[in-house]
Amino acid sequence: MGNILEHINSPADLKSLSIEELEQLCEDIRQYIIRCCADHPGHIGSSLGAVEIAVALHKVYDTPKDKVVWDVGHQAYAHKIITGRREAFMHNREMGGISGFPKMSESRYDAFGVGHASTSISAALGLAVADEKLGSEAKHIAVIGDGALTGGLAFEGLNNAGGLKADILVILNDNQISIDKGTGGLHDTLIKITTGERYNKLKDNVWTALGATKLRQRIQRMVKNIKRAFIKTSEVNSMFDSLGFRYFGPVDGNDIEALVTYLTRLKAIKGPKLLHVITTKGAGYKPAEDNPTVWHAPGQYNPATGETIKQDDKRARYQDVFGTTVTRLAREDKRIVGITPAMLSGSGLSIMNAEMPDRVFDVGIAEGHAVTFSAGLAAGGMLPFCCIYSSFMQRAYDNVIHDVALQNLKVIFCLDRAGLVGEDGATHHGVFDLAAFRPVPNLVIASPRDEMQLCNLLYSATQEDYPATIIRYPRGRGIGTPWENEPFSKVPVGKAELLHEDREARIAVLSIGPVADKCRQAIEMANEKGVGAIHYDMRFLKPIDAEALADVCSKVDVILTVEDGCKEGGLHGAVAEYVAAHKSGCLVESLGVPDEFISQGSREQLFDYCGYNTKDIFEAIMSFAKK
Amino acid sequence: MGNILEHINSPADLKSLSIEELEQLCEDIRQYIIRCCADHPGHIGSSLGAVEIAVALHKVYDTPKDKVVWDVGHQAYAHKIITGRREAFMHNREMGGISGFPKMSESRYDAFGVGHASTSISAALGLAVADEKLGSEAKHIAVIGDGALTGGLAFEGLNNAGGLKADILVILNDNQISIDKGTGGLHDTLIKITTGERYNKLKDNVWTALGATKLRQRIQRMVKNIKRAFIKTSEVNSMFDSLGFRYFGPVDGNDIEALVTYLTRLKAIKGPKLLHVITTKGAGYKPAEDNPTVWHAPGQYNPATGETIKQDDKRARYQDVFGTTVTRLAREDKRIVGITPAMLSGSGLSIMNAEMPDRVFDVGIAEGHAVTFSAGLAAGGMLPFCCIYSSFMQRAYDNVIHDVALQNLKVIFCLDRAGLVGEDGATHHGVFDLAAFRPVPNLVIASPRDEMQLCNLLYSATQEDYPATIIRYPRGRGIGTPWENEPFSKVPVGKAELLHEDREARIAVLSIGPVADKCRQAIEMANEKGVGAIHYDMRFLKPIDAEALADVCSKVDVILTVEDGCKEGGLHGAVAEYVAAHKSGCLVESLGVPDEFISQGSREQLFDYCGYNTKDIFEAIMSFAKK
Repeated sequence: MGNILEHINSPADLKSLSIEELEQLCEDIRQYIIRCCADHPGHIGSSLGAVEIAVALHKVYDTPKDKVVWDVGHQAYAHKIITGRREAFMHNREMGGISGFPKMSESRYDAFGVGHASTSISAALGLAVADEKLGSEAKHIAVIGDGALTGGLAFEGLNNAGGLKADILVILNDNQISIDKGTGGLHDTLIKITTGERYNKLKDNVWTALGATKLRQRIQRMVKNIKRAFIKTSEVNSMFDSLGFRYFGPVDGNDIEALVTYLTRLKAIKGPKLLHVITTKGAGYKPAEDNPTVWHAPGQYNPATGETIKQDDKRARYQDVFGTTVTRLAREDKRIVGITPAMLSGSGLSIMNAEMPDRVFDVGIAEGHAVTFSAGLAAGGMLPFCCIYSSFMQRAYDNVIHDVALQNLKVIFCLDRAGLVGEDGATHHGVFDLAAFRPVPNLVIASPRDEMQLCNLLYSATQEDYPATIIRYPRGRGIGTPWENEPFSKVPVGKAELLHEDREARIAVLSIGPVADKCRQAIEMANEKGVGAIHYDMRFLKPIDAEALADVCSKVDVILTVEDGCKEGGLHGAVAEYVAAHKSGCLVESLGVPDEFISQGSREQLFDYCGYNTKDIFEAIMSFAKK
Repeated sequence: MGNILEHINSPADLKSLSIEELEQLCEDIRQYIIRCCADHPGHIGSSLGAVEIAVALHKVYDTPKDKVVWDVGHQAYAHKIITGRREAFMHNREMGGISGFPKMSESRYDAFGVGHASTSISAALGLAVADEKLGSEAKHIAVIGDGALTGGLAFEGLNNAGGLKADILVILNDNQISIDKGTGGLHDTLIKITTGERYNKLKDNVWTALGATKLRQRIQRMVKNIKRAFIKTSEVNSMFDSLGFRYFGPVDGNDIEALVTYLTRLKAIKGPKLLHVITTKGAGYKPAEDNPTVWHAPGQYNPATGETIKQDDKRARYQDVFGTTVTRLAREDKRIVGITPAMLSGSGLSIMNAEMPDRVFDVGIAEGHAVTFSAGLAAGGMLPFCCIYSSFMQRAYDNVIHDVALQNLKVIFCLDRAGLVGEDGATHHGVFDLAAFRPVPNLVIASPRDEMQLCNLLYSATQEDYPATIIRYPRGRGIGTPWENEPFSKVPVGKAELLHEDREARIAVLSIGPVADKCRQAIEMANEKGVGAIHYDMRFLKPIDAEALADVCSKVDVILTVEDGCKEGGLHGAVAEYVAAHKSGCLVESLGVPDEFISQGSREQLFDYCGYNTKDIFEAIMSFAKK
C-alpha cells in the first residue's frame, strides 16, 4: 500500500510530512484506491479526483475538532483511508464493512453523514452555529461538487450562511462532470471560467485578500513556474458575492502544495468564503480520466489494464428496459419527453437521448425542479416521463403532491432503484415510496413483476385512462423474460393478476413488483411439501384491486403481503385497511423492510436480513400452514 | 367598484385603455380589493403591491395564449379580478367560491396552479418548452417575490432555464418583505441595491439593451421627471448572469406607465431575462403599508379606518401556546434553538425571538435547508425546535429521513397547520404528514389533543428518552384548557390515554389530536341515546400504543379511528395493521380526509364535507350500534 500510507493511522500522522511526502502519500492512496476498488466496486472516479483535497484538509485543519462535511460523500475514500479506516477500506460497501459514504456512527472524523447531494453547506452551517453557541473555536468546511451545487438545497445553505456571516469555508470541487455531463446556466459559467484563455493567466486580486506581500511573491513565482492557475473572475465571484460569500479561485485541486498553501491562508480569514478548486475526475488513473461517466462506478475491473469486467448475465437491466421502451413509445407519440435530474445513464434515458436529444432534459441534480418542470410540460400539452431514483424522489414529495397530483396533470414517474439497492446502503434504499405516495389523490401507483410487465405498464400509462402514474422498479436485472420488440398489451388500471390459484389453500400471498418471482418459487417449494397457496401479483398499490382482495378474503384464513419496501403503510397497509374494514377475520402478515434503516450489503444479503427472500416467504407459508 | 373596473370583464377590455385610464383602473382595483377583503379576509398586502404588475402584464401580453405563472399566488387578486372573476372575488376563499390562489381548473388565465412558494420558474419553463415543441410563439412569464426567490426550487429553475437559453421572463417582485422581515445573503444584496444612493440615480446601461434611441430619450426624460429609478447594478446582475439570465432593473413596480413601457420592450428580447421590480407591500393603503407583517393576512377589518377586528375568543391559538412554551423551555435549557423557514410570526417563534433573538433562526423560504441546518445544529450538540407548517414539511421529507432520522439526530419538529386549514384550501391542508412519516424509523410522532398537552409534549420531547420527534397541531385555537405557567408533566413515549371507559361498550373510538374533543362530544351524545363507547386519545402515532390496541380489541367489535388527516396510512393504517395482524375480528372504520384534494372553506365546513365533525362521529357510533 505504499511506504508512506502504511504509516498513516490518523490525521495526526500527516502533520509532520513535507510537501514531497504528501505528494507521495497522495500517490500511495491513489494506487490503494485503484487496487481495492478493482475487486470491491465503488465510486472510484470522484474519489481519485479528491485525494489531494482530503489530504490537504487533514493536514491543515485540526480534525475532528474542525469539521469537514463531504457532500454526497462518494468522493471521500481518501478521507476514510487516512482517518483510521485504511484496512477497513478493503471491505468498503460490504455487509458488515464500512459504508461507501461518510457516516457519523462509523468515525468521529465523519462530522455529518451524507449520501444524497447538496446537504453539506446546510449541515456545516448547523455545526458551525452550534460550535459558536457552545463557545468552540472549531472551523467548518463543506466540500461540494459542481454537480451537487445545482441542487437548490445548496443554494439555500449558501444564502443562509451568507446572511448569517457564518465563518465557514465551502470548497467547490469542480470537475465539470457530476456523473453525466454537467448542465445548467451555472455550469456554463463555471466552464467559461476554467476553459479559454483566462484559466492559465494569473491575476492577483485574490492575493490581496490572502495575505502578506512576501508570501504572495513567493507563491506567485511558484505558481508561474509550475503553471498553476489561480484567478479571480467576475461572473462566479459576483454570484457568490451576491449570496454573501467571498470567492477565491480557481485553483488546481490535484496540486497538494497549492491546496495546503491556500487552505492555510484561508483558515485565517473569517466569514463565509468559497474556494473554487478544479479537479480531474479519475485523476491519476488514465482509464478513469478518459471515460469519467463509465468510471463513476465501474463495477469490477482489471487494475493493470483498466478493463472493466462485464457480468455474464443475459437478463436485461430494468433501466435498459425502461430506456429502450420509452424510446420506442416516443417514436410513436410526439408528446413524449424524458426528464432526469442528473441520472441520464443511470435511468436509461441515455438511450432515448442518443436517438432524440432534443426531447430529453437533464436538469442537473434538482429533483424538485425535475418534477415541477415536468408538471409545466404536462400543463403545456406534453407527456413527460420523469425519471428519478426512488430515494431521491423523497426530495420531490411536495412537487408531486402540489404541482402534479393536485392539478391532475399527467406525468409518468419512473422510479428506478426502488426497494433495497444493495451496496449504496441506507441513504439510497428506496423503501418509503409506496407508503408515502399511497395517500396522495389522483395518482396511480404500480410496480411491474418483470421486464415485459414494465414495458406494458409504460405503454399503458400513456393511454387516456391513466392519470399521473408512478411506476417503481428495482436496481438491477429482470428475470429474463423476453421483452424487446414484443407487442405491448394494455394493463387495466388497478387490476391484480392471479398468478397461482389453489382452491384448497388456506393462505394467499399478495406481492407487488419483482419480488413476485421469489413468491412463485416459495409457493412451488411449499407445494412440494403439500402446502398450497394462492398468489396474486397486485401490480397496483393504488388503486388497490378490491375484487382480488374480496376474492382472497372469501377463500383463505391468512394473507401474506410481500413487498420490497417498508412494512408500514405500503401494500401491507392497503391490504390491512381493506381486511380490517371488512371484518373478514383474515390474519394479515407482512414481509418487507422492518422499521429500521438498513445498511449496505448485496441485495441478496439484505433480503435475507430483512426476511423476505425466497426461503423466508417459504417459511412464512409453512408456519401458517401449521396454525 | 369604480367607473373603469366595472367595464373590465376580460383582459381584452384593457387593450384600448390609455395610461391614465390604466392608472385609474389600478386605483379602482385597489379600492375593490380593500373593500372585499374587509369582510372576506385574504392576503391583502401582497395583492395590493402587485396590482400594477397584473394590469401591465394583461395589457402587454396576449393572455391566455401568453402564460403568466404567479409564484405562491396570494399576490394575484388583481389578476383574478381582471380575468373574469370580478364578481366571484366577493366570494374569495369561501366554500364554493373562488380559490385564494390561481388554479388551473378555475380559469384559463391561470396558466398553472400555485400555493407553495418558488414553483413559478420551473413551471413557466415547462410551459415554455412545451409551447416551443408544439410550435407556438407564446410568451412565458413567472412573477416571483423576493421571499420565494430564496427557495432552492427557484434557483434550480433559474439554473435550468439559463442553461436551456429558454425564452422566458422572470419578474422579481421585490417588496423586501416576504411575510416577516426578509433574510439571507441574497436579501442583503437586494437591499443594498434598492437602498442607499444608487436607487435614485439613473444609469442607462439597460437602455442599450432595451432599444431605440428616441424612445430611450423619451423614457429617460419621463423617468427623471417623475423620479422613477431604473438602474443596472453589478451584484445581482452578475448573480443572474451567472445563471444565464440577463438582468434588467430595478424599476418601480407600482408605476403602471413604467411597467407597460418596459414590458413592451422586454417582450421583443429573446432568451432568459429577469426584470427586477420594486413594489410596496400594501401599496396604496396606508395601514397595510405601515405594518406589512400584520397586513399580510389581517383577517377582518374596517376598511375606512384600517382597524383590524379582533375575534373575541379567549382560547389560545396553538401557535401562541407553542411560542410561549418553547421560550419557557429555552430559558432553562441553553441548548434549545428555534428554526423557521420564513414563518416567524405564523409559527409563534416570534415570541421566542423577542426574548432571545440570537437563538432563533429565520432561514427564509427554504424548508429543506431548515431541516438539514437543524440536523447540523443537533449534530453539534444543540436541541433545535424546527417549526414548519405541515403542508410545507412535504418539501423537506427527504431531509427528515436522510439528515435527521437516519442519523438518529434529535430535532423536535413542530408542525403547525396540520390537518385541514380552512380558507387557504387544497395547497395548504396538512393532511399527509401522519401517513408519510409513519414508516420512517427513529421518529416519534405525536399530536396533542389540547393546549396543555401541547405544552407537555414539547416539554417531554426535550427529555432524554425522546428521539427526533414530530409534534403536529392544527391551525387555530385550542379548546380553552389552562396551560400558561402550568407545571409540565412528562408524557411517556408511545402511551395512549384512556379518556372514556365503558365496560359495556361494543365500540371504541381512537383519536389523535384535537379532534378528541369532537369525539368526546359525540360520545356524550351517543351516551344520551343509550349507546356507549370507549375513547382513547392515542396521542402517539409512532410508536403506536399496542397495549391500548390490545385492550380495545379484547373488548369491542368495532373500532372507529378519527384523525384530522388522510384516511389512508396514518392512524387508520396503524390501527388496521395491528388489528389485521392479530386476527381480532374487529371491524375498523375510519373517519378522516377522503382520497381527494379538498378545496377551501371554513374549517367547520370542511370537517362536515369530509365527514368527521361531531355529528359524523356521533352518527358513525350510532350506526355501528345497530349492527
